[in-house]
Amino acid sequence: MEGIILAEEKVFKDPVHKYIYVQDQTIWDLINSREFQRLRRIRQLGTSYLTFHGAEHSRFSHSLGVYEITRKIISQFERYGYEDWPKEERLLCLCAALLHDIGHGPFSHSIEKTFETNHEDWSVRMVLENTEVNAILRRVDEDFPMKVAGVINKTYSKEIVISLISSQLDADRMDYLLRDAYFTGVHYGTFDLERILRVVRPFKGRIVVKESGMHAIEDYLMSRYQMYWQVYFHPVTRSAEILLAKILQRAKVLYEEAYHFGFIVHPIECLLANRLTLEGYVQLDEALMQALFMQWQLEKDVILADLCSRFMNRRLFKYAAYEEVEPELLEQIRAYMDHIGLPADYYLQVDYPSDLPYDVYLPGKSDEKLPIVLLNSRDELTEISQQSEIVRSITGMHRGEHKLYYPEEILLNNTLPPHIRQLLTQKN
Amino acid sequence: MEGIILAEEKVFKDPVHKYIYVQDQTIWDLINSREFQRLRRIRQLGTSYLTFHGAEHSRFSHSLGVYEITRKIISQFERYGYEDWPKEERLLCLCAALLHDIGHGPFSHSIEKTFETNHEDWSVRMVLENTEVNAILRRVDEDFPMKVAGVINKTYSKEIVISLISSQLDADRMDYLLRDAYFTGVHYGTFDLERILRVVRPFKGRIVVKESGMHAIEDYLMSRYQMYWQVYFHPVTRSAEILLAKILQRAKVLYEEAYHFGFIVHPIECLLANRLTLEGYVQLDEALMQALFMQWQLEKDVILADLCSRFMNRRLFKYAAYEEVEPELLEQIRAYMDHIGLPADYYLQVDYPSDLPYDVYLPGKSDEKLPIVLLNSRDELTEISQQSEIVRSITGMHRGEHKLYYPEEILLNNTLPPHIRQLLTQKN
Amino acid sequence: MEGIILAEEKVFKDPVHKYIYVQDQTIWDLINSREFQRLRRIRQLGTSYLTFHGAEHSRFSHSLGVYEITRKIISQFERYGYEDWPKEERLLCLCAALLHDIGHGPFSHSIEKTFETNHEDWSVRMVLENTEVNAILRRVDEDFPMKVAGVINKTYSKEIVISLISSQLDADRMDYLLRDAYFTGVHYGTFDLERILRVVRPFKGRIVVKESGMHAIEDYLMSRYQMYWQVYFHPVTRSAEILLAKILQRAKVLYEEAYHFGFIVHPIECLLANRLTLEGYVQLDEALMQALFMQWQLEKDVILADLCSRFMNRRLFKYAAYEEVEPELLEQIRAYMDHIGLPADYYLQVDYPSDLPYDVYLPGKSDEKLPIVLLNSRDELTEISQQSEIVRSITGMHRGEHKLYYPEEILLNNTLPPHIRQLLTQKN
Amino acid sequence: MEGIILAEEKVFKDPVHKYIYVQDQTIWDLINSREFQRLRRIRQLGTSYLTFHGAEHSRFSHSLGVYEITRKIISQFERYGYEDWPKEERLLCLCAALLHDIGHGPFSHSIEKTFETNHEDWSVRMVLENTEVNAILRRVDEDFPMKVAGVINKTYSKEIVISLISSQLDADRMDYLLRDAYFTGVHYGTFDLERILRVVRPFKGRIVVKESGMHAIEDYLMSRYQMYWQVYFHPVTRSAEILLAKILQRAKVLYEEAYHFGFIVHPIECLLANRLTLEGYVQLDEALMQALFMQWQLEKDVILADLCSRFMNRRLFKYAAYEEVEPELLEQIRAYMDHIGLPADYYLQVDYPSDLPYDVYLPGKSDEKLPIVLLNSRDELTEISQQSEIVRSITGMHRGEHKLYYPEEILLNNTLPPHIRQLLTQKN
Repeated sequence: MEGIILAEEKVFKDPVHKYIYVQDQTIWDLINSREFQRLRRIRQLGTSYLTFHGAEHSRFSHSLGVYEITRKIISQFERYGYEDWPKEERLLCLCAALLHDIGHGPFSHSIEKTFETNHEDWSVRMVLENTEVNAILRRVDEDFPMKVAGVINKTYSKEIVISLISSQLDADRMDYLLRDAYFTGVHYGTFDLERILRVVRPFKGRIVVKESGMHAIEDYLMSRYQMYWQVYFHPVTRSAEILLAKILQRAKVLYEEAYHFGFIVHPIECLLANRLTLEGYVQLDEALMQALFMQWQLEKDVILADLCSRFMNRRLFKYAAYEEVEPELLEQIRAYMDHIGLPADYYLQVDYPSDLPYDVYLPGKSDEKLPIVLLNSRDELTEISQQSEIVRSITGMHRGEHKLYYPEEILLNNTLPPHIRQLLTQKN
Repeated sequence: MEGIILAEEKVFKDPVHKYIYVQDQTIWDLINSREFQRLRRIRQLGTSYLTFHGAEHSRFSHSLGVYEITRKIISQFERYGYEDWPKEERLLCLCAALLHDIGHGPFSHSIEKTFETNHEDWSVRMVLENTEVNAILRRVDEDFPMKVAGVINKTYSKEIVISLISSQLDADRMDYLLRDAYFTGVHYGTFDLERILRVVRPFKGRIVVKESGMHAIEDYLMSRYQMYWQVYFHPVTRSAEILLAKILQRAKVLYEEAYHFGFIVHPIECLLANRLTLEGYVQLDEALMQALFMQWQLEKDVILADLCSRFMNRRLFKYAAYEEVEPELLEQIRAYMDHIGLPADYYLQVDYPSDLPYDVYLPGKSDEKLPIVLLNSRDELTEISQQSEIVRSITGMHRGEHKLYYPEEILLNNTLPPHIRQLLTQKN
Repeated sequence: MEGIILAEEKVFKDPVHKYIYVQDQTIWDLINSREFQRLRRIRQLGTSYLTFHGAEHSRFSHSLGVYEITRKIISQFERYGYEDWPKEERLLCLCAALLHDIGHGPFSHSIEKTFETNHEDWSVRMVLENTEVNAILRRVDEDFPMKVAGVINKTYSKEIVISLISSQLDADRMDYLLRDAYFTGVHYGTFDLERILRVVRPFKGRIVVKESGMHAIEDYLMSRYQMYWQVYFHPVTRSAEILLAKILQRAKVLYEEAYHFGFIVHPIECLLANRLTLEGYVQLDEALMQALFMQWQLEKDVILADLCSRFMNRRLFKYAAYEEVEPELLEQIRAYMDHIGLPADYYLQVDYPSDLPYDVYLPGKSDEKLPIVLLNSRDELTEISQQSEIVRSITGMHRGEHKLYYPEEILLNNTLPPHIRQLLTQKN
Repeated sequence: MEGIILAEEKVFKDPVHKYIYVQDQTIWDLINSREFQRLRRIRQLGTSYLTFHGAEHSRFSHSLGVYEITRKIISQFERYGYEDWPKEERLLCLCAALLHDIGHGPFSHSIEKTFETNHEDWSVRMVLENTEVNAILRRVDEDFPMKVAGVINKTYSKEIVISLISSQLDADRMDYLLRDAYFTGVHYGTFDLERILRVVRPFKGRIVVKESGMHAIEDYLMSRYQMYWQVYFHPVTRSAEILLAKILQRAKVLYEEAYHFGFIVHPIECLLANRLTLEGYVQLDEALMQALFMQWQLEKDVILADLCSRFMNRRLFKYAAYEEVEPELLEQIRAYMDHIGLPADYYLQVDYPSDLPYDVYLPGKSDEKLPIVLLNSRDELTEISQQSEIVRSITGMHRGEHKLYYPEEILLNNTLPPHIRQLLTQKN
């Protein structure tokens, strides 16, 4: 199951890894497939570009990066000749690395929440159903698509393969931390990838870290922690996400009320009707969503039009932060908004960062991804937070600030009761 | 004409300049205007992202960068207390720097060629007509929009102001070289900005370079030269541009033939009809173009559908390179294409890089931007290519390779006459 | 007390800060003084170059860096017009920043321990006694040397001036972390200096950090923590330090025994006799120490000759690490060494990293440098570890591994009792 | 002739290449040899640290870097399986790369000129005579030292091996450009090493460059050109070199006159007497030279004492630059200096940069190192300046400014004739 090796190595220029090297015909074909090219039109960081203007990088580039890190890890394993490394899984690992995000849709997080879909399911479908990707994988072996899907949905029999792509120290996270740091310009996300590649090794069916590499891992986890607070949980990005969710929520309600949209496209209609086919899903991308919102500024439904205009022109909601949002106060604000004709369902939102899809390192959680394990010179394994006080300090951390998002203009309305104004404008 | 200073300085995180600082209310308002936010949806490098996957950066980020470099130059001039610097032009320079690209449309180069529009004219209209930008500028002074427009179209009375924004060593080029290098990952574009800022100075109504800075300028010009060949003139990017131009050309023809498009949007209709209003122009962006091409893959016109599918799925034309393309040979290929039913008007293109909007440093050309001038210790001025053999060597350079672009599949067609195949596949 | 401003700004190329700018005649003269130039011959990191071959950088470059950071902080304070900043202290701060390490001798830590001297005292003497530095400072004002000395030994009346040069977040640490990271190649020491410069401010007679900058400070403290474990406490560097201390200890003993050195130089003789004058001290540098050790390899005292040969040719002691070193075991090893004729006083050493001159952030310690204090929007101050769990986790940390250093050859001696061999070679 | 492979790969942290990997026992032993460790005490850039304070890096680190680049090139050749690569030469190449500078003495250029020695001869002797290095090499094979020496002095039979270590595009130059750029902070020296490694290949007994890599080579040659003018030919460094040469010249004259030195060390005495043994040479390093000059400040010979004091305290000669130095004027200045008692032999020097050991790319020169050759797709070879106008423009370049160095104080002497003052102070 090795596939064909290219006569001449192909090279991509990549700002994060300098170059990305392709030696396998299968990888080359997958990159050129229609489904993979579509990832060019889906941003890696969703709405973060509204906070960090450099963050326009796509899932296409991230996917290449995950592939490249996986390729480097495996080539290191082969170079050192580790016996615990199952050599025959090489191409499977590379394909799964490249395709792990193939099912991501536009602004995934918001869409998944509103329409109860799941990008992992779509990834599996893209691999197994009638797609260019599937055809390419089948050329390796009839069973190969099933195997790739198994790695993606974590049912594949060999944990070591899964852990390369999806664990607390996987190629996915390593690439996105470096890449997001590079494109946002927030340098906190940088860590010493080359050193980490040198301290990981296969050991009894899993990937472990040599104890001598503990500080490098601490540094990686601190980078992750910092990126979460500096980038991923940034309140302005949250504000944009909320606006996006409100747009989708409104569109869904309108669709269900048989509202006649001034502008609509077939795949969007399917989305709103919850009957997306795979073919329709492939047509969804962020260009389409942005074009849609652009046109929807002209809709006669004032809520939809207004929300879209805010999103397109970056008139985001402001926020106030609290230890806890008192239900009574929330009620009072809702009442006031109703009173002035602003529907609170669309213009007020309490947000907890813990809603987010990103996680800090929490080894205790039951649904946890595979934890990071240290291997000492006596071949004993320990979970890293047992050894590192730094990791423990990050692990137990809760930053439960609640934020209340609202349109700034209501502050300008002079009927706003003073105690609400004060509540919304108090500095933290 | 100083405008209001913000109570608290605003800061943008920028990967190229680390931070971008805003102290003026006017600048802050301009950035938040609808027209400026639109630049987020227009890529700085057009179709280059199909060659360099990192090159998704927007004209929004570039415009902020040009502003920041201009701010730094001026603040250096003020710090050194140069008498030749007209202090009262500070805000004008900053606004013009920020807005110099405000009129850029989606994939500007191709659209401008096909529809004979011009982004500079649109920039001037955005500044002078009924826009948010115009309203903000008028708050400074009733004449202020006129002045900003004057700097953009290079009619403003003070050459020194124009030369900051638009000359051979302007803030525009300095930012785009650094930025394009950063996002493509092609490091050739880096040069020592901090040193250049220190060696430029105002002198008798223009910006000059202290002679001691000659090597820094050589390095900057070499970076530029390298970026042109590595990035801007890259044949794969050219191939994507050609495809784009063919799509637009076909759509225009179809529109003129009153073809009924399966999918169309109002501003696109206006574009095809050559009657775009300013309001319509503001609605054009690359998200819309991509959504359009996505949908056009389903058009019943097979040429349009096929060209769009090639563009969206990156099935670009291949190319062969020649000293010169012999007319007879070209004729033979056209004949063959007609014979197999491929319309050569849409599937064959000869390309000369000199068609491009980017220029190397050519001091002799009559329509030349202001040249780079060195100032020696005896207050004498010399144009840099008089002093530097390196600059001369770049200046006179012609790299006139012609390339012939064609769809790869015709090679697979076994009726292809051998001499044509050979012509197309000969390596250079 | 502003001193003369240079007609033309002077610039040093610096790999860490890109450029270092000098505007004051006094600073320029101090840099050119004989005492300051001497810092070129004293390494910033002592023997670390034997572990990290890039770490050859001098205290000269570090001192310029501390000056530059101080200059930037002050110029930021002036730009923002903070009222709590005492403008008249500018030149004093710059001079103290530049001169804070002027009294450092060669391989300071080892020499200070063996000969009970103190670089801070020497710094004060260099500023106050008959030196070029003193003459230059006196040109500013007769009292000026006293003030500079006051800042260096922390007796100056204004805490805010002292805290710039010597606190938990001072220009000294900021420069050495960045510089040591750069020259060792250990990237952990990098943090966002530009951001930190923006979040510090003067407030009621001290330097505080705006609360919004807490994550930047966390990152800085983590960098510091990582640098301590990766670089400053590196066991190989400790091994070189121990060897150095043994050489000095042996030389002192020999001198006291009136041993006749085959090679000696006057200032070294004074050092051994504990009667160094300021003039003699200025002649001491690492070039001299290395030349000395080079020649001492030929001494007839075999212990001195052997220790010097080990140091010059980097035949360092090996080490074994323990939770605690049992006194009995130590006794046994000493006995064995005596038995085979290796004097344990010179060939065996227990080492605790806590002996080191570097500290992690320990706000509770009584002799602590000024702690880092956050300022919130209600003008309230809190010590940072109250706010940040990360900082708390670093603060309480003890890494009390003891190491036993010994010459590797004894392992090759086949009379070595097996339990001692095992004790020395057990892996940790 | 493969030698023993280490059980565990050794790693050095290197700021330029991130990590340096050692897999061979022979390489590991060579690094730990006394002669190689001595390179830690010899700066890569001689006196340049007096111009660029970061440039304290040693020949030790450079030699490791040359080794690492050679290792990478060879491992690339092996990975691509080039048939023209003689696999059996691997260890020879690595050893020669590591040892190519082993014979460098302190401040080589000045010493070699004054004492007519040659570091290449010393390198060969270190490899062939009774040294630790020789013993280690002999362990591989009795003939191995001869082979290594043959590569170093370019008499080895296979040109391909020599060209890796010593040609216009060798590992030596590639490392020093990157390293000197890093440590000086002058970024001009950076180029895309990874890309160059990918475009070089063995071809019919030599190393050639694939034509597609021409721009990468242009960039490398431009970096080199810029580094020569920014760093290597820097007039302040030249001034320090001149002072050094004058010191040595004076010491030699004094020695020949049987002057009794207040301070002297045996290997220096041998040097002055031109009867250095290999053992004495190994004892020479820059620490010793600096310690010597430090002590010589106290010599009773006022010329020697003064020159040493100038060097140690960086009171360098100033310079004036001319198209050509008129003999009459020079005579006048010499006459004036004699008149005021300053011996012109030691205090006046005309300098041409072409005296320097560094060269720009000059393919025509007969004593030229192997030129850079491009390989096109038809397996034809062309020397690069045939193809690249950029390279041609650098190649032909002469920057023949002559500089006259003199002590600044003579300007302060009010008997200085005005026309001489003018001559010396005229700005260029």
